[in-house]
Amino acid sequence: MVDNLVVVGVGLIGGSFARALKKAGAVRRIVGIERSPAYGERALALGIVDEVATSFDAVAGADLVLLAAPVAQTRRILAALAPHLGPGTVVTDAGSTKADVVAAARAALGGKVAQFVPGHPIAGRETNGPDAAIDDLYIGKKFVLTPLPENGAAQVERVAGAWRACGAVIHRLTPEEHDKVFAAVSHLPHLLAYALVDDIANKAHADLLFQYAASGFRDFTRIAGSSPEMWRDISLANQGALLAELDAYMTQLAHLRARLAAGDGATLEAVYGNAQRARRQWIEAIEAAEAPQPIDNAE
Amino acid sequence: MVDNLVVVGVGLIGGSFARALKKAGAVRRIVGIERSPAYGERALALGIVDEVATSFDAVAGADLVLLAAPVAQTRRILAALAPHLGPGTVVTDAGSTKADVVAAARAALGGKVAQFVPGHPIAGRETNGPDAAIDDLYIGKKFVLTPLPENGAAQVERVAGAWRACGAVIHRLTPEEHDKVFAAVSHLPHLLAYALVDDIANKAHADLLFQYAASGFRDFTRIAGSSPEMWRDISLANQGALLAELDAYMTQLAHLRARLAAGDGATLEAVYGNAQRARRQWIEAIEAAEAPQPIDNAE
Repeated sequence: MVDNLVVVGVGLIGGSFARALKKAGAVRRIVGIERSPAYGERALALGIVDEVATSFDAVAGADLVLLAAPVAQTRRILAALAPHLGPGTVVTDAGSTKADVVAAARAALGGKVAQFVPGHPIAGRETNGPDAAIDDLYIGKKFVLTPLPENGAAQVERVAGAWRACGAVIHRLTPEEHDKVFAAVSHLPHLLAYALVDDIANKAHADLLFQYAASGFRDFTRIAGSSPEMWRDISLANQGALLAELDAYMTQLAHLRARLAAGDGATLEAVYGNAQRARRQWIEAIEAAEAPQPIDNAE
Repeated sequence: MVDNLVVVGVGLIGGSFARALKKAGAVRRIVGIERSPAYGERALALGIVDEVATSFDAVAGADLVLLAAPVAQTRRILAALAPHLGPGTVVTDAGSTKADVVAAARAALGGKVAQFVPGHPIAGRETNGPDAAIDDLYIGKKFVLTPLPENGAAQVERVAGAWRACGAVIHRLTPEEHDKVFAAVSHLPHLLAYALVDDIANKAHADLLFQYAASGFRDFTRIAGSSPEMWRDISLANQGALLAELDAYMTQLAHLRARLAAGDGATLEAVYGNAQRARRQWIEAIEAAEAPQPIDNAE
């Protein structure tokens, strides 16, 4: 049970966290800190938070503080709340990159950094703001904890317990592992999809090309519909790992280009076949994990 | 009205063409030519065709012949049916590439090439074979005609009319235009998706990576679930145009890599934003085209 929760940023991520904890009966009182007066009023009207504050005074006496503002603001927010941070408060975040957040926390919190337990909920929707917040956003989704060596077990458990109460499944990685993993399976695909659509849009005959694009193209480029500002920030925040993944992919493309130019159908088929097989195994594993568990009727 | 139709290959594409024409009452009699005895029997049992033949004798006297076998077999099939091709018969195909099909037709048909009207229906499903064939596969979908200079207007119209009767919307491109367009919006995305999944599957920590892949990755890589044999053939058949598109894309990636390495957030945001805008306009145009037409209640 969280007695006093502070959520910094009451949009989709922060608002859904608040709603899920309320529904689970796992929180007593929630204060939202919000720069946008419209978002603050709306979150209050929707019953997402019990009170809205604009100053970080509100952090004093909180059990748990969730940062759910844009990642690029993390350091500024931590520096602003540091003076109000009592020893009994644990702070966590929901950013899509972790090594940069840890660096920001060390710089902004100094000796209080043990109170910061970084994390990343793997969930989202295509809409934003308090009206997009729902109480079941995190049910069955992964929450990746990336604790610091300084964190105490009770501090980590306070964060893990709150996310568990939201229905999330807790995973643990180091910040560096986290950033490498998401560079490969999320950040690189976003960059590739943006690059393809931009490439086509800049061609002289772009209208003709888009006219014949079909459902395969639509799905391949769906992630290029994401927020350019958010993905600019993620790309820069995870620059090192993203560059490494991009380099590996460009090497792979150069190899495939050479095989295609040589008319080497056997290699193309082997690469395509390996990809098809790996993807099928992945999809089967997901479907098995998401399938309803059989009910045991035996006594 | 097609009096005698021959469909070579009675799987998804050929079987759906047969079913759609039957439903429209636009065909009198359909003969299927099928190498697989199981497919032939099944197509007959399902009522897709009125008769199954294994020899190309069946082509004699047909009004229209549709080739719907794998593209790599086009030349062999055309050479086999050429001796049976009477002057009143028009032959068309459904291949995903066109310049190579035209070259195969010129080589195999010689002086009879004017009777070959190449085309490409932009429709598909994730299943195959006669059981996958449905009568509404082509409704509202594009059919791209890529006629030869030798084709007569009546020959072209016989093909266009049949596809129109299936519910398709007829478009015209030259074979070269067709191949450039589909290299950009279909063949390149397939290669990129296969390359990414293969790249990840070959990493030492592939299991960890796949564990955190989510819905964005699933959609981005959906086309990597396609048939490796079919896409090997398409890649090789459209080698020139695909290499040109791949080179343009690799240049684009090298540019983005340099901007990312330089920490140039403004350029990243401009590229991502241009892509997001172009994709949104494309989706809006599709949705407007697919929206039900308003019913005019005025007198």
